[in-house]
Amino acid sequence: MSMGNPLTGFFQPRNVALIGASDRSEWSRLIHSRFGAFGHQGNLYAINRDGKPAHGLPGFKNCGEIGQPVDMAYIFVPANAVGQALRDAGDAGIKHAVVLTSGFAEVDAEGAAMQLEITEIARSYGIRMLGPNSLGFANIAHGSVTTSMPPRLPLRQGRLAVVSQSGAITSELNKYAHNQGIGLSFMAATGNEADIGIAEIVDYLVDDDAVGAIALYIESIKSPAAFAAAAARAAAAKKPIVLLKLGRSPMSAAIAQAHTGSLVGDDGIFDAMCKRYAISRVMSLEELILTANLLANVGPISPPRIGMASMSGGACAIYVDLAEAHGLAVPQYAEDTQARLREVLPGFASTLNPLDVTGAVMTDPSIWARALPIACSDPNMGLVVAFTVVPNSPVENATLGANVIQIGEGYRASGQPAVVGTTIMQDAAESRFELLAEAGVAAFLPNLDVGVRALAHLQRWSENLAVYRPEIAAGDAAPAGKLPGSERETLAYLASYGVPVIPSVLVQDGQAAAKAVAELGLSVLKIASPDIAHKTEAGGVRLRVEAADAATVFDEIIASVKAYAPTAAIDGVLVGPMRGDGIELVIGVTRDPEWGLALTVGFGGVLTELLADSATRLLPVDRSAVIEMLGALRGAKLLAGYRGQAGVDIERLAEIIAGVGQAALGLGPTLAALEVNPLRASGGLIEALDGLTIYHAAG
Amino acid sequence: MSMGNPLTGFFQPRNVALIGASDRSEWSRLIHSRFGAFGHQGNLYAINRDGKPAHGLPGFKNCGEIGQPVDMAYIFVPANAVGQALRDAGDAGIKHAVVLTSGFAEVDAEGAAMQLEITEIARSYGIRMLGPNSLGFANIAHGSVTTSMPPRLPLRQGRLAVVSQSGAITSELNKYAHNQGIGLSFMAATGNEADIGIAEIVDYLVDDDAVGAIALYIESIKSPAAFAAAAARAAAAKKPIVLLKLGRSPMSAAIAQAHTGSLVGDDGIFDAMCKRYAISRVMSLEELILTANLLANVGPISPPRIGMASMSGGACAIYVDLAEAHGLAVPQYAEDTQARLREVLPGFASTLNPLDVTGAVMTDPSIWARALPIACSDPNMGLVVAFTVVPNSPVENATLGANVIQIGEGYRASGQPAVVGTTIMQDAAESRFELLAEAGVAAFLPNLDVGVRALAHLQRWSENLAVYRPEIAAGDAAPAGKLPGSERETLAYLASYGVPVIPSVLVQDGQAAAKAVAELGLSVLKIASPDIAHKTEAGGVRLRVEAADAATVFDEIIASVKAYAPTAAIDGVLVGPMRGDGIELVIGVTRDPEWGLALTVGFGGVLTELLADSATRLLPVDRSAVIEMLGALRGAKLLAGYRGQAGVDIERLAEIIAGVGQAALGLGPTLAALEVNPLRASGGLIEALDGLTIYHAAG
Repeated sequence: MSMGNPLTGFFQPRNVALIGASDRSEWSRLIHSRFGAFGHQGNLYAINRDGKPAHGLPGFKNCGEIGQPVDMAYIFVPANAVGQALRDAGDAGIKHAVVLTSGFAEVDAEGAAMQLEITEIARSYGIRMLGPNSLGFANIAHGSVTTSMPPRLPLRQGRLAVVSQSGAITSELNKYAHNQGIGLSFMAATGNEADIGIAEIVDYLVDDDAVGAIALYIESIKSPAAFAAAAARAAAAKKPIVLLKLGRSPMSAAIAQAHTGSLVGDDGIFDAMCKRYAISRVMSLEELILTANLLANVGPISPPRIGMASMSGGACAIYVDLAEAHGLAVPQYAEDTQARLREVLPGFASTLNPLDVTGAVMTDPSIWARALPIACSDPNMGLVVAFTVVPNSPVENATLGANVIQIGEGYRASGQPAVVGTTIMQDAAESRFELLAEAGVAAFLPNLDVGVRALAHLQRWSENLAVYRPEIAAGDAAPAGKLPGSERETLAYLASYGVPVIPSVLVQDGQAAAKAVAELGLSVLKIASPDIAHKTEAGGVRLRVEAADAATVFDEIIASVKAYAPTAAIDGVLVGPMRGDGIELVIGVTRDPEWGLALTVGFGGVLTELLADSATRLLPVDRSAVIEMLGALRGAKLLAGYRGQAGVDIERLAEIIAGVGQAALGLGPTLAALEVNPLRASGGLIEALDGLTIYHAAG
Repeated sequence: MSMGNPLTGFFQPRNVALIGASDRSEWSRLIHSRFGAFGHQGNLYAINRDGKPAHGLPGFKNCGEIGQPVDMAYIFVPANAVGQALRDAGDAGIKHAVVLTSGFAEVDAEGAAMQLEITEIARSYGIRMLGPNSLGFANIAHGSVTTSMPPRLPLRQGRLAVVSQSGAITSELNKYAHNQGIGLSFMAATGNEADIGIAEIVDYLVDDDAVGAIALYIESIKSPAAFAAAAARAAAAKKPIVLLKLGRSPMSAAIAQAHTGSLVGDDGIFDAMCKRYAISRVMSLEELILTANLLANVGPISPPRIGMASMSGGACAIYVDLAEAHGLAVPQYAEDTQARLREVLPGFASTLNPLDVTGAVMTDPSIWARALPIACSDPNMGLVVAFTVVPNSPVENATLGANVIQIGEGYRASGQPAVVGTTIMQDAAESRFELLAEAGVAAFLPNLDVGVRALAHLQRWSENLAVYRPEIAAGDAAPAGKLPGSERETLAYLASYGVPVIPSVLVQDGQAAAKAVAELGLSVLKIASPDIAHKTEAGGVRLRVEAADAATVFDEIIASVKAYAPTAAIDGVLVGPMRGDGIELVIGVTRDPEWGLALTVGFGGVLTELLADSATRLLPVDRSAVIEMLGALRGAKLLAGYRGQAGVDIERLAEIIAGVGQAALGLGPTLAALEVNPLRASGGLIEALDGLTIYHAAG
């Protein structure tokens, strides 16, 4: 599998040239020690000015002298010597380089210029480069190491890949995973990403069968399109990506900018991107590791609902409070399941979810082995998680250890992966790992708060994967004819995508206006002009116009608009029926420079303006995605019928909104924004009352 | 200090009789071992049927035989023998008992009956009792122990008191605190609380100078009034109370009820109670311990604003994201501070908050010692917290250790308590404690997520303490005259408390109605009847009435109401001016059975009904508290002037709303609810348009 990826050779080197290796340098000694500590398999060579051996490795003056095929140039000479080191590697036919040396774009403009220079040198030799200012990578699963990051011993090889731009953060994540008994298969710090960036590494990790989940800590994404493509492949392969990205709040975005000099994109759009590709976005480093580990070891669950069982009523109640806070559903066990559970549980146990197996398990741990298979077989649950006290040393209560073993028995009988949690965060001792391994535990949640967060991610990941569809290629071809510009053209264009629009008549004089109003009844008159964006401000909109007044109102509108914008082209006045009360929605499509077209849905008026109550998804969206968006709005209850108003036909509404998205995709690459404001809904009558398109200047 | 508390004798016993002690019992052996492990100071006596020695203690058949003054009867005989054990203790003049034995109200009705029986026995002897089903307490600071809970070794004596109803949770909290290097002064598990409950224990701990903060895990509070009184004393003494209470979500309230059989009160009211007494309410056990430790060691800060400094730009950005999520303000350093910081920091450092001291501290840790005194002196900050990597073993990088020492130097020079954080959760090794102690660190935050939560609690605690005023005795005396009943009487009563009410005229016939409307202009006519609660449903309200129609409308209202409620007493029809657009608020006062009168403020209409956008505080509230309540509403921007409407005079509005609260307090103990709906505000014109009072049946 992984052989097919373009970066397989890069991340699985055997023979490595250490350019800058010297026995005089403490730094060089430390770097060399990492090879053994992480289990590198392959030959190492020391390159330095004098061609002296170092750290017991044979020494050479340049890579060409080695006389053996070399897979990787590992460069840690001073910044001003990096260019020469790359040339030396290139001359020797080496195609991969990791540049640890710092002092480039992360420091100042001079450093940035030097970075451009070395990047150009690498490119001219066809060298792929990680860095500069990168602490390298340890591909533990494949025994390929070029890193200065410290190992944690005993080395645990596992299925987690951890990647961040910062070496300090990657190391902290490795440390935390180690303390929780979680092994990594791969870790990397990408540094300045002058060539290879996070997107390409994710793409590589999708293809690496040794990797069960990809955990990322991201300051900025330099190649959004490549990242989206890699994320799409991960979603298709059901390989989880979990990420902590800076810039969730506007202020932190400003700080990230101050720190990295990079532009942090719109965070709501980023969330929409995560949702599309079933990426789990977390808030803390602990949540990052524990979520990735859970998803790697459990896989997507169906139905995407989780049951809980515990011996502690208190833990059950805390769990439910946290579940509500973190968006984890707490479904109930089926009636039949509850009846069967009552047969094996003490009389006073509650068979609600969370299931309370009660303190009786302290005298009879085998209750777990009898209850779990029943709970796990429940059709309402895709997973059942057992919370207990997991002893951390052999001297702790033997009964607690027996509970864990019996929990393992229960899971084994159920055929479900064993997910076990405990209430409070604690580093795990080796004896705990042994116990958990003996019980066959697939994923351990060492804390209620982070544990519930991780379970909520598992639920959402499973939900998002279930509706994931590979990208529909769309949006790059402009329609054959002229792009719709005016309100009238935009509404007509929307109608061609099945979006019902309010009927209207374009009139050129007062008499025609009066005739139109006589036919339509109480009407709205609006100026029709491609040059007037803000019609109300221009005096170009009049509501509740009766036939008798229509001719006068026509004249007043024309006069007002001419006074407001003397040079505006005027196509006439649009006459349409005046609609009564109803729910007004705003449907907006905007193009994000990083992630492309996104559709936003919100309620008009006070709800949107004051409360920022809206939902955003990347295009395309289908009807079911829009139904989910509408349900996520705080004002969702409005749609069900509020204060005597008729409920809205949600299926129909969602279909129409999805049609707006398709219409936007059909407008080609120059579309900047498309807005329907308002989309009016009243029972089954749904109509776009106004439409607007904005384009970037072509080419 | 602590000698004056009624429970001082109870919680500081010296001589203890172990009733049920026997060498044959493993349980008895374990119980006895706790005395030594927790450092009990005093004599122990074994009481059993045969009067045999046990665990090396002298044995007696009953307490009377001991012949020495005994401070505590510690009872762990079978449930059916507890009554006799209490009688024996009472006969010997012992006034305190801890009952470990379970099998009482927590099990079934029979157990509940037995619990009543033993409680009656204790009362008849004047014995104060903790339990039954209590795992006892360890008063570590005073060397007084009666508990079966396990110690954590080495025993750390600190300033935290941990109390919960559950022995398992108390033990977990002790374990977590221990692993974080945090010592306890007191720990207790209250069990069934047949006599002594959490409220009284909190009251005792307020008086105990060895206690710096009180950490509670609460399933239910059995004596709300006593708890409020104890919390008020804690607030006055500025001794922090931090609590995790079950029942935050409706579902967890149902579960808590299923588990404890106790009624969990309205959670919004509970939050209001916490706010009044500056109690910090947390979501997880880790947050409970770390928040209590921070508050105990730092005390309230002024201004209640926190600055941050870190060597990691990434940590700074995560911090800000978390701060936004958890409600921690991120104020900026003053211009002058920033200028002074630039003199001691590397050129590329950001002097924003979080302050980035940069990786330069890895080569020159003394930057910390120069920068921190400047940051700590900032007038915008009540506290500055330093985030760094704190090494956890002597073999970890010595430079990191030097950083911690230099941070300590910086705090020492600033005179501010040293608060140090690190990014990721980890159990601390003894060598870390030694390093932190050497640096003089007052509080350590071992994790960004929980650390930021704890800092947010410190901020809110300081804010709430700053506005804390001792309770104003009020609300028990009914007014001298008749209680206001009808809308008209209620509005008149509100007016006597300075609440402006809409002018109105009570008319008895159509002619008088027409005359009134002619004077007032466009009017509202409303039925005046003490028997009609829902006037609109009865056809008793008509809007926008003109003088010409007033007489007809009067007749229609009377006819409609008579048809709706033939027996209703009708006082006439109220005529008042029709008000135009404005902001409508709903002001409600309700009496909670546990916590008393609470005032709720929200916006009328869609915001309140759909979004549950309201703020609740216990009465009394003053103007500044109401201003804060209004600011907490999601729709707060409405008040500043929205879509061209005039902004509301917030000071005046808040004064009026506080007046509604005072008016409610003046209505005495039978008041169940008082509502002003709507309170209309438009610029400076604020008026109650309608008022309603509901009373409990007196006596």
